[in-house]
Amino acid sequence: MGSPVHRVSLGDTWSRQVHPNIESERYIQSFNVERLINILDGGAQNTALRRKVESIIHSDPEFSLKDNYFMTQNERYVAAVRKKFHLQITAKRLGWSENSPEFYYVYRALSGELALNLHHVFLKSLRSLGSEEQIAKWTPLCNEFQIIASYAQTELGHGTNLRGLETEATYDAATQEFVVHSPTLTATKWWPGDLGRSATHTLVQAQLICSGARQGMHAFIVPIRSLQDHTPLPGVTVGDIGPKMGFDHIDHGFLRLDHVRVPRENMLSRFAQVLPDGTYVKLGTLQTNYFSMVVLRVDLLLGEIIPLLQKACVIAIRYSVIRRQSSIRPSDPEAKILDYQTQQQKLFPQLATAYAFHFLASGLLEFLRSSYDAILNKDFSHLPELHALSAGIKAMTSDLCLQGTELCRQACGGHGYSKLSGLPSLVSRVTASCTYEGDNTVLYLQTARFLVKNYLQAQAQATPGSTLQKSLPQSIAYLTTTDLARCPAQKAADFLHPKLYTTAWAHVATRLIKDSVHHLETVMQSGADWDEAWNQTTVIHLQAAKAHCFYISVKSFTETLEKLENQPAVQQVLKRLCDLYALHGILTNAGDFLHDGFLSGAQVDAVRTAYLDLLRLIR
Amino acid sequence: MGSPVHRVSLGDTWSRQVHPNIESERYIQSFNVERLINILDGGAQNTALRRKVESIIHSDPEFSLKDNYFMTQNERYVAAVRKKFHLQITAKRLGWSENSPEFYYVYRALSGELALNLHHVFLKSLRSLGSEEQIAKWTPLCNEFQIIASYAQTELGHGTNLRGLETEATYDAATQEFVVHSPTLTATKWWPGDLGRSATHTLVQAQLICSGARQGMHAFIVPIRSLQDHTPLPGVTVGDIGPKMGFDHIDHGFLRLDHVRVPRENMLSRFAQVLPDGTYVKLGTLQTNYFSMVVLRVDLLLGEIIPLLQKACVIAIRYSVIRRQSSIRPSDPEAKILDYQTQQQKLFPQLATAYAFHFLASGLLEFLRSSYDAILNKDFSHLPELHALSAGIKAMTSDLCLQGTELCRQACGGHGYSKLSGLPSLVSRVTASCTYEGDNTVLYLQTARFLVKNYLQAQAQATPGSTLQKSLPQSIAYLTTTDLARCPAQKAADFLHPKLYTTAWAHVATRLIKDSVHHLETVMQSGADWDEAWNQTTVIHLQAAKAHCFYISVKSFTETLEKLENQPAVQQVLKRLCDLYALHGILTNAGDFLHDGFLSGAQVDAVRTAYLDLLRLIR
Repeated sequence: MGSPVHRVSLGDTWSRQVHPNIESERYIQSFNVERLINILDGGAQNTALRRKVESIIHSDPEFSLKDNYFMTQNERYVAAVRKKFHLQITAKRLGWSENSPEFYYVYRALSGELALNLHHVFLKSLRSLGSEEQIAKWTPLCNEFQIIASYAQTELGHGTNLRGLETEATYDAATQEFVVHSPTLTATKWWPGDLGRSATHTLVQAQLICSGARQGMHAFIVPIRSLQDHTPLPGVTVGDIGPKMGFDHIDHGFLRLDHVRVPRENMLSRFAQVLPDGTYVKLGTLQTNYFSMVVLRVDLLLGEIIPLLQKACVIAIRYSVIRRQSSIRPSDPEAKILDYQTQQQKLFPQLATAYAFHFLASGLLEFLRSSYDAILNKDFSHLPELHALSAGIKAMTSDLCLQGTELCRQACGGHGYSKLSGLPSLVSRVTASCTYEGDNTVLYLQTARFLVKNYLQAQAQATPGSTLQKSLPQSIAYLTTTDLARCPAQKAADFLHPKLYTTAWAHVATRLIKDSVHHLETVMQSGADWDEAWNQTTVIHLQAAKAHCFYISVKSFTETLEKLENQPAVQQVLKRLCDLYALHGILTNAGDFLHDGFLSGAQVDAVRTAYLDLLRLIR
Repeated sequence: MGSPVHRVSLGDTWSRQVHPNIESERYIQSFNVERLINILDGGAQNTALRRKVESIIHSDPEFSLKDNYFMTQNERYVAAVRKKFHLQITAKRLGWSENSPEFYYVYRALSGELALNLHHVFLKSLRSLGSEEQIAKWTPLCNEFQIIASYAQTELGHGTNLRGLETEATYDAATQEFVVHSPTLTATKWWPGDLGRSATHTLVQAQLICSGARQGMHAFIVPIRSLQDHTPLPGVTVGDIGPKMGFDHIDHGFLRLDHVRVPRENMLSRFAQVLPDGTYVKLGTLQTNYFSMVVLRVDLLLGEIIPLLQKACVIAIRYSVIRRQSSIRPSDPEAKILDYQTQQQKLFPQLATAYAFHFLASGLLEFLRSSYDAILNKDFSHLPELHALSAGIKAMTSDLCLQGTELCRQACGGHGYSKLSGLPSLVSRVTASCTYEGDNTVLYLQTARFLVKNYLQAQAQATPGSTLQKSLPQSIAYLTTTDLARCPAQKAADFLHPKLYTTAWAHVATRLIKDSVHHLETVMQSGADWDEAWNQTTVIHLQAAKAHCFYISVKSFTETLEKLENQPAVQQVLKRLCDLYALHGILTNAGDFLHDGFLSGAQVDAVRTAYLDLLRLIR
C-alpha cells in the first residue's frame, strides 16, 4: 500500500544555496567574524587545522551523513562501524596520531557518528591502570584492531554507587585464574558501549575476592567473543540492550558471566596485584583512577556537550531570519520571527550561554592542564578542587545545554520536531549527558560537599586561636571576601558593569552556601547525625551548588573579556552576550537576589530593562 | 557480523509478577485507593467501563503493543493501521458508537497507537462547516472507509498565521470548478497526519478567489489518490515528510497541488458558498469554526497531554521504590532512591501537578459543556473567555507536562534513556504538544491579550462617570477584588491554608497583569503605537499570563478539595498534593512574590520548610 516516500536530500544544489535573508543578515555584522572564530578555536592555526580536517571529511563520500535519519538502528550501526574503519585508514595515510587535535575535529565534523569509541576508553584505562607488561601486550592488539575492546562498569542494578557493583572476580590459586561471575540478575553489566554486538574483549569492573576477603573494585580483561567466528565464548551471555532515545549507531550491550575464567595476568595491576598464591598486594593509590574520571568529564564538555548547544543556536537563529510569520502591525508584511521579542528572549540567552560555557570549559581545561603534571607526580593538592569544579560544571553545563537545545528546537515550531532539522538528534544527545559520567544531581551534591567542607574550614580558621591555616582553594576564595549587603546599582545601565553583576552573583552564592551550612547545623543540633542531616537538606545544598557554578561561569566570561582588550570590536560584541548571560541568570533566579534585600524590586525591574535593551542591541 | 540481539519481552511471566517492594509500599496506604480512582474517572460507573474496555483491549492479541519499540517506522505505521481497522470491526461488533466514552478509553489503553485519526477530524469539520447535502453525501463514505480522509491546513511556510496560508482555490465559472493550486514552494501542505501514505481525500484549507477578489480561507474536499490503485491523481504530488521525534506510526505528509480541479460542490458551504456564476455569498459567522479549535484544545488536555505526565509519574515512582542505590548512612544497607530528598523533590511536585492538571482540565471541560448549547444557539458571550482559558491552559499544561515527564525520565537515570522504560516515548509525545494546536508562546500571548483588554475595561469602568458597565468574566474577576499588600502568614504551618496560598497567587497574578499594562502604556506614551508597544512588552505579558494560569490551576485544585468534604481520607491526601503544588509554584517563582514585599525572605524560608515537610509526609 502507499505511494513512495519522497525524501528530502541533503547537499543538493538547492540546499547549497545561501538564502538571501541569511546573506543580508551577514552583511550587517559589526565586527570581524574571522577574529571571533579564531578566539573560539583557540588561535588562527587551530582554525586552519579544523578547516583542513573538515574539508577532508566533507569531501570524502565514505564519511557522508546523508540519509542518516532514514536509517534503521542496524543501518546506523553498520554505517558508524564503516566510518570508523575508514577513519583509521585515512588517519594512517595522513599520519594523524591518536589523541591528536585532528581526531577531535573529525569527531565534531562527523557529529560523533563513529562506532567503537569504547576501544579508546579501554586503551586509556589500560595505560592508567595496567602494568608495563600489560600495556606492552595489549596496546598493539588494540592499535591493529586485532581485538575490539570495550569497558564494562555499569550494571543493571548499580550506576552511581560504584562500590555496590555486584560482579565478582574470585581468585582460584589452584589454576592461577580469576573466576568472573554475575551472581544476580542485577549484576548484569548494562549500557556499556560497543558491547552489544562489536566487542571481542571487555574490561570488567568487578569485586575482587582473594586472601579470603573482598578487596573492592578492580579491572579485569575478559575475552567475550570468539576471534574466529565472533560467537559468545562459553559462559558468556551478551547482547544489545535494545532501543534508546538516541545513539542508535552505538550497540550498548548487556553481559552476564557464568563463572568465566581468565588468567591471573588479566587483572590490571599497576596499583594492586594478586600473587600466584592469592596474596593481595596494594602497590599504590587509586587517586589517579579518580583523576581519569575528572579528565573524561572535562573532555566531554568541549568534545560533546557544549557543541550540541552551539549547533542548536546556529540552526534556530538561521531559521528565525528566514521564517516569516504574522506581522507586527496589521498593515506590515510578515516579519522575520527573530524580530519578535519573544523569539529573541528564547534564542539570545542560549547563544550567550553557548559562549559562556565555551569559555568556562576552556578555562577549566587550562586549569586541568596546569595541574596535570603535578598530579602525575603524586601532588594531589588540586584534585579536590578540580573534582568539585568539574562535577558542578558538568552538571550545570549539561542541564542548561539540554534546556537550551530544547528551547531552540521549540523555537523552530513544527519544523523543529522533524528530525531533518537536526534539532531532535541534538536534544536527544545532550539529554544523555545529564545522566552519563555522573547523574547531575549526584554531581551537584559532590560540589556542595566540597563547598560545605571548605566553608566550615574557613569558619574554623576565622575563629580566634584556631590552628587551621589552610587558605581556601582559588575558585571559592570569594566566600571569605567582604561582601556588600545591598547592590549599589541605581539605574538599568549600572547593571552593564561586569564587576557589579559578578559581585552580585558572588553575594548570592555566598549567602546560599552559608544558608545551606546553617540548615545542616540546625538539623544536627536537633539531634540528627551528619548523614541524616545531609539528606534532609540536600535540596538546599543543590540550590547553593547551582548558584556557585553560575557565579564561576559569570566570572570566567568576564575574565575572558578582559583578555580581549586589544580586540575592541569583538570584545564589545562578546560583552553584550556576557551581560545578557549574567542578567538573564539574575532574572531567572530573581528570588535569590530579592530574598535578603540585596536587590530591591525596582532594581530587578532595572535588570529587566537592561536585559530587554540587550535583546534589541544583539539583534 | 554480530551475535543475535536479545530482546526483553513484555508481558512474560517474570514481568507480570509484582515486585515485593511495590507490594509493601501499597500495603501502607492511608486511604481507600478505589475511591480516589473513582474520583479521577468521574464516577464508579466510568471506572467500571474503563476497566471493561481495557480488559477487552489487553486480552486481544491484535491490539498487543509488544515489540513496538523494536519496529521500524514503516512497521509501526502498518501496525497502527491494522489496529485501526481491527478496532472498527470490534466496535461494530460491540456496538460502540463514534465519540462514545469507549473510544476515549481505547485510545488511552493503546497509548494512541492508532492510524487514521485525521479521518475523524475530517468528519468533525464536515459536520461543522458542511451543508446538509454535503454531510449526507460524505459521511457514509467515511463511515464505511470507502474513502480515507485527512485534513490539510499547515503549510511549509505557514502554521501560526492561518490567514497567511498560500494555497489558492480559484473559481472557474466556465466549468463550475475550483482550481486548487500551490503557487509557491512554501505553499506546500506540510505535516497533515495520514496524508503521507494513507489518505484518498483531504480537506484543503485554501484562499478562495472568486468574484474577482480574495475571500479568505475556505475548506475544499480534494481527492488526492486513486480509489482504484491508490496512486496520486494527476496534478497531485504527495508523500511522507520523513522522520520525526515521535509519532512514527503516523504518516505525516506533504501535498503539492498543480491546478487540480474539483467541482463547485466540494467547497464546504455552511457559512459561505459560491454560486454557479461565481458570486460569493456569506451565509453566517465563522465563529463556530473558531469554537471547534477551542473544543479540540480542551479534548487534547485529558485525551492526550495530561495522561502522559500521569504515566511518567507512575513509572518513575514505582521505579524509585524498587531501585536502591547508595546508603544514607555508610553503615546502612542501600536505600530506596525515593527515600532521598532530592528524588522526592523531583517526583512529588510532578505527581501533584498531574493531579492539579487533571482537575483543572475537568473543570474547563465542564465550563465548555455548560456553554456548548448557548454557543450553538449563537450566544457567543462566553467564547472569548473560553478561548483565553483554553489557550493559556493548553500552553501551561503542555509546558509543565514536558518539564515533568522529562524530570521523571531523568529521575530514572540510565534506564530512563532506554525506550523500554516507556519514558522516552512519553517525553517525545508531550514535546509535540507544545507546538501543535498552537505554539505555546503564541497561545500564552492570546491569553495575555484577553487579560490586558479586560483589565483596561475594568479600569475604565472604575473611572467615575464611565458608561461601561460590563462585569469581568468569572475567571478574572479576582483582578478587581481587594488585595492585601503583605501576606499575613507568620509560620510555616500558615502556608498550608488553601485560602492563603490562593490569595497569594491572585496577588502575584494581579500585580503582574497590572505591571504588563503599565509597561504597555509607558511604551505607548513614549510614542510607539499599540502594535509596536505590544511587541516591545511581550516578554512581560508572557510572565503575567503564566501567573494567571497558575493561579487558575491552584484555585481549581482547592475548589475540588472543597467538594470532597464527605471523603475526608481522600481529601487529606489530595490536600497535601494541592499544598505541594501551590508551594512548589511559589518557590519556583519566589522572585515574583518577593518583588513588592508581598512575601519577605523569612516567609519564603517558611514556605520552603512547609514544602520540605510535605515531601516527607507524602512519602
